[in-house]
Amino acid sequence: MNRREFNLNLLFAVPALTLLVPQAQPQLRVNGQRLNARLSELAQYGKTPEGGTHRLAYTDADLEARQYAMKLMREAQLEVTIDAAGNIAGQRVGSNTQLKPLMIGSHIDSVPAGGSYDGQVGSMGAIEVAQILAENKVRLRHPLEVVIFQNEEGGTIGSTAIARGLTEKDLSIVTNSKKTIREGIKFIGGDPDKLASAVRKKGDLAGYLELHIEQGGTLHQEKINIGVVEGIVGVFWWEVTIEGFANHAGTTPMNQRRDALLAAAKYIDAVNRIVTSVPGRQVGTVGRIQALPGAFNIVPGKVTTTLGLRDLDAAKVQMLFEKIQSEVRRIEAATGTKFDFKQVNASQPAPTDERFRRVINDAAKQLGLTTKLLPSGAGHDAQEIAHLSPVGMIFVPSRDGISHSPREFSEPADITNGANVLLHTLLKLDGMSLN
Amino acid sequence: MNRREFNLNLLFAVPALTLLVPQAQPQLRVNGQRLNARLSELAQYGKTPEGGTHRLAYTDADLEARQYAMKLMREAQLEVTIDAAGNIAGQRVGSNTQLKPLMIGSHIDSVPAGGSYDGQVGSMGAIEVAQILAENKVRLRHPLEVVIFQNEEGGTIGSTAIARGLTEKDLSIVTNSKKTIREGIKFIGGDPDKLASAVRKKGDLAGYLELHIEQGGTLHQEKINIGVVEGIVGVFWWEVTIEGFANHAGTTPMNQRRDALLAAAKYIDAVNRIVTSVPGRQVGTVGRIQALPGAFNIVPGKVTTTLGLRDLDAAKVQMLFEKIQSEVRRIEAATGTKFDFKQVNASQPAPTDERFRRVINDAAKQLGLTTKLLPSGAGHDAQEIAHLSPVGMIFVPSRDGISHSPREFSEPADITNGANVLLHTLLKLDGMSLN
Repeated sequence: MNRREFNLNLLFAVPALTLLVPQAQPQLRVNGQRLNARLSELAQYGKTPEGGTHRLAYTDADLEARQYAMKLMREAQLEVTIDAAGNIAGQRVGSNTQLKPLMIGSHIDSVPAGGSYDGQVGSMGAIEVAQILAENKVRLRHPLEVVIFQNEEGGTIGSTAIARGLTEKDLSIVTNSKKTIREGIKFIGGDPDKLASAVRKKGDLAGYLELHIEQGGTLHQEKINIGVVEGIVGVFWWEVTIEGFANHAGTTPMNQRRDALLAAAKYIDAVNRIVTSVPGRQVGTVGRIQALPGAFNIVPGKVTTTLGLRDLDAAKVQMLFEKIQSEVRRIEAATGTKFDFKQVNASQPAPTDERFRRVINDAAKQLGLTTKLLPSGAGHDAQEIAHLSPVGMIFVPSRDGISHSPREFSEPADITNGANVLLHTLLKLDGMSLN
Repeated sequence: MNRREFNLNLLFAVPALTLLVPQAQPQLRVNGQRLNARLSELAQYGKTPEGGTHRLAYTDADLEARQYAMKLMREAQLEVTIDAAGNIAGQRVGSNTQLKPLMIGSHIDSVPAGGSYDGQVGSMGAIEVAQILAENKVRLRHPLEVVIFQNEEGGTIGSTAIARGLTEKDLSIVTNSKKTIREGIKFIGGDPDKLASAVRKKGDLAGYLELHIEQGGTLHQEKINIGVVEGIVGVFWWEVTIEGFANHAGTTPMNQRRDALLAAAKYIDAVNRIVTSVPGRQVGTVGRIQALPGAFNIVPGKVTTTLGLRDLDAAKVQMLFEKIQSEVRRIEAATGTKFDFKQVNASQPAPTDERFRRVINDAAKQLGLTTKLLPSGAGHDAQEIAHLSPVGMIFVPSRDGISHSPREFSEPADITNGANVLLHTLLKLDGMSLN
């Protein structure tokens, strides 16, 4: 027992002073060595030859990693349950029974051939925070809930199940594991027939905090310790079909062609030009393309491709989409083709809570860390939980901005910093009146 | 027996007058009704629900169509053999044993889900010409050889076997029929172990004439009866690989991307711009593309695509390729990507013989038909036979320039015109000193 723990015990002997607890822990720190060692252990489940992690939701590797996480949660003196949707919850009662829980956590499933940091950092970080509180006998006013959301990479399935409920259509989606979501939920110990019991109501939570790697390169490049997330950008996807006319590539003069791939090329270039023509951090991506019939000697008659736009401001996305549409009209006229856009995804921007951002920033500054306000370009479970309660997100640097790759890497010291910011943000929020 | 045939018989009774024969047949005409009826019958082999023809080389449909063609050849009093390479030859002796054969013909295999005109018109046209000569008891000075080349659509395989020989590598190619070329040759009655016997030497032929549909839209659009082919364009193909860097489409700012698909778009647009920037009938096509990994949420890290350039002048193709390379250097610098071009086809331009062109034009004019000199943008067996002897090609209009499609169509009257031009060109050439 060190001096700090001794002091804490003294404080806990005086229940009337619980309100002072958050103020009284400025020296409390997570065990960074333990946290990083656990990340290495976790990375054994689904380890790839390339040194990354292939741990698709609903596979054996996922199941084993979940068992490992539950073991750690019990070590952190959390009461562990699996909800009907298959999310793992580790709970610890608070000192004020009137208050709603503060939730912290992330996910441990990975993309195919992914990395070993992504949601793992926030998951192990949340368990470490719970464990350090338990070891130091710090009881929060609010109940604490550490959550490991299931199948984040397949479309924030676990957090959606809590925040909005899953539809029958969702349940029938065949995931990368080859199991449907329904089968997957059963596989990991949930009960797809009782999903209603997993859904929470607005106001059921006092707040949610998620620690995560940035996945982009801003913090690493600018040598900043902590990203304070402004919000999770809206993600808008369209399937794009371009109809031209397939013809012989040798016998059809250039001026008689209706080349769908030439139209696609002009479109892809236009998307880039339009998205970068206005200030801001919006992104636009064409990620997939196929030309049909797709042969050396045939002028492509049809192209299927995509459009993805993301920004914190949905109105800006709409403005960019309209500019792209005007340009597409010009391309159609110039190439004798016809474009069709079918929207297949429209997840709205999820701003983080302004108070949470301020508290994260204060906590980081008090730890002597540099901070930067930035959007999250990737989707996260936090965007779903934002339907229920205020949310905050803490980013740590990703080397070279690489993610969803075996080359994904965050420095152990940065991960420890992030967990300490999570810890102190939690303590500060716990002392506030959240509603 | 009509009056014309009577006169011919009179002429043949006077062997010393054989040199006059070609001049003496100005009224001779093919039987257009029979020719077009046979095209319809031929189209039954491999007929598709869309009304086109799916008759891949080395399939049952191909074998049955070949048997049908051989039956017609025998009706035309040709002596039918299959060479070691699987080509069908129908021969008729000439009156002058010192002369080398004049060859006419084409192919009857089709592309997948193709049309019913393509090589079929020239094949049935050549048999019709032989039959009308036989029926009218016109014996040429030169031996006549009607040839049906095997597997033209798979890369002028039969004509290459005659003109240059097939390599072991050629023989091991797996064709659309799922058979290798070796297996295919055996299947259609050739002998892949005796291919050397099929190879002809330069000078073994007096000349080759091929009737074909244009496959482009020039004759149809300009309402011209007969195309006099200047030559078969050189066909140059490259596999193009573009390396960028795959990254998260949400978290990677626009200015930090190395987007291989954006680079590909600029490249495709540049190919079109460069190819159309100089006068002439050259064409440039990008027909195939794949972006990897190919997902909505990943900036493409790699693209595989193609380049095809065709022209009658190989030096012009080289000049265009160099312009494209310069532009590619600029695109690489602007997008942080790296292009690689691997040439996978370089069939050199095959000009037709100047005398043959003149004779085709004269024959058409004497038949009261309009003509236009034009290149063949598609490859043909004639380009291979050009290695052995002078060649000529006669085009008839393709409706809307559509080919390799069930919508491929040529008017029966145009087909009859083409066969009459073939007949009279043959007769004129037969009267000339070819060497």
